[in-house]
Amino acid sequence: MNPTFTTPQDAEDAYYDALEEGDLPGLLAVWDDSDDISCLLPMQALAQGRAAVTEAFAQLLGHGRGIELSVTHLHWIETHDVAIHLVEETAQNTVPGGPPPLPVYATNIYRKDSRGWHLIVHQNTPPPPPPGLTPPRGG
Amino acid sequence: MNPTFTTPQDAEDAYYDALEEGDLPGLLAVWDDSDDISCLLPMQALAQGRAAVTEAFAQLLGHGRGIELSVTHLHWIETHDVAIHLVEETAQNTVPGGPPPLPVYATNIYRKDSRGWHLIVHQNTPPPPPPGLTPPRGG
Repeated sequence: MNPTFTTPQDAEDAYYDALEEGDLPGLLAVWDDSDDISCLLPMQALAQGRAAVTEAFAQLLGHGRGIELSVTHLHWIETHDVAIHLVEETAQNTVPGGPPPLPVYATNIYRKDSRGWHLIVHQNTPPPPPPGLTPPRGG
Repeated sequence: MNPTFTTPQDAEDAYYDALEEGDLPGLLAVWDDSDDISCLLPMQALAQGRAAVTEAFAQLLGHGRGIELSVTHLHWIETHDVAIHLVEETAQNTVPGGPPPLPVYATNIYRKDSRGWHLIVHQNTPPPPPPGLTPPRGG
């Protein structure tokens, strides 16, 4: 019953739409239905395999709200059955009046098989601190 | 004149050997000789393309010392021409008496072409803080 994504971009669009809508089943349908998957959400331990990835996103969406990210493509590398998309994710639903959110790097890797394209790796990496801003230090 | 790596693991071994020896040309020989490469070293901006990757590693090795990392494999995903290795890197040459270094996640992606396997993406991600340890806060 899972949707068939005919391009890596179809899968990526479905991923960020499902995140925004807080749609856990929709999000999990983008992930490859195998244990050959890995996910590194910001400042979390590696989630490896279907059960761990499901648990990581259940927690992420557990507050009942979606996560709206604007996504900028930085670099695409594609072979005939693997697509690597490096993007910047910037949170949109932030505190009014608060500081603008820093973009976070993400790499999304998709693999194609007879069922179409599905996500096999998602990895977030924090950006460096902005120039002139030192990171917080213990006092 | 570049070495030919016949497996992704050959390329990976050469990468970490070159890092340890502070061997910039050896390290750059592991990277694919194209602009279709990307590197995210810890807390740095994205280095994209041959010139930016060269500059990033020239700075990293600019102190004249190699970087000795012990590497633990966490997950391999391989197709016929792309290999994705998720590893943990732990610095070995640390300050005597200091705290043990935290492992850092890294994803190394290799691509095979007529010249063998070469690195096309390296991405580091910090781990979560250990249980019971809160990250440093501004005082």
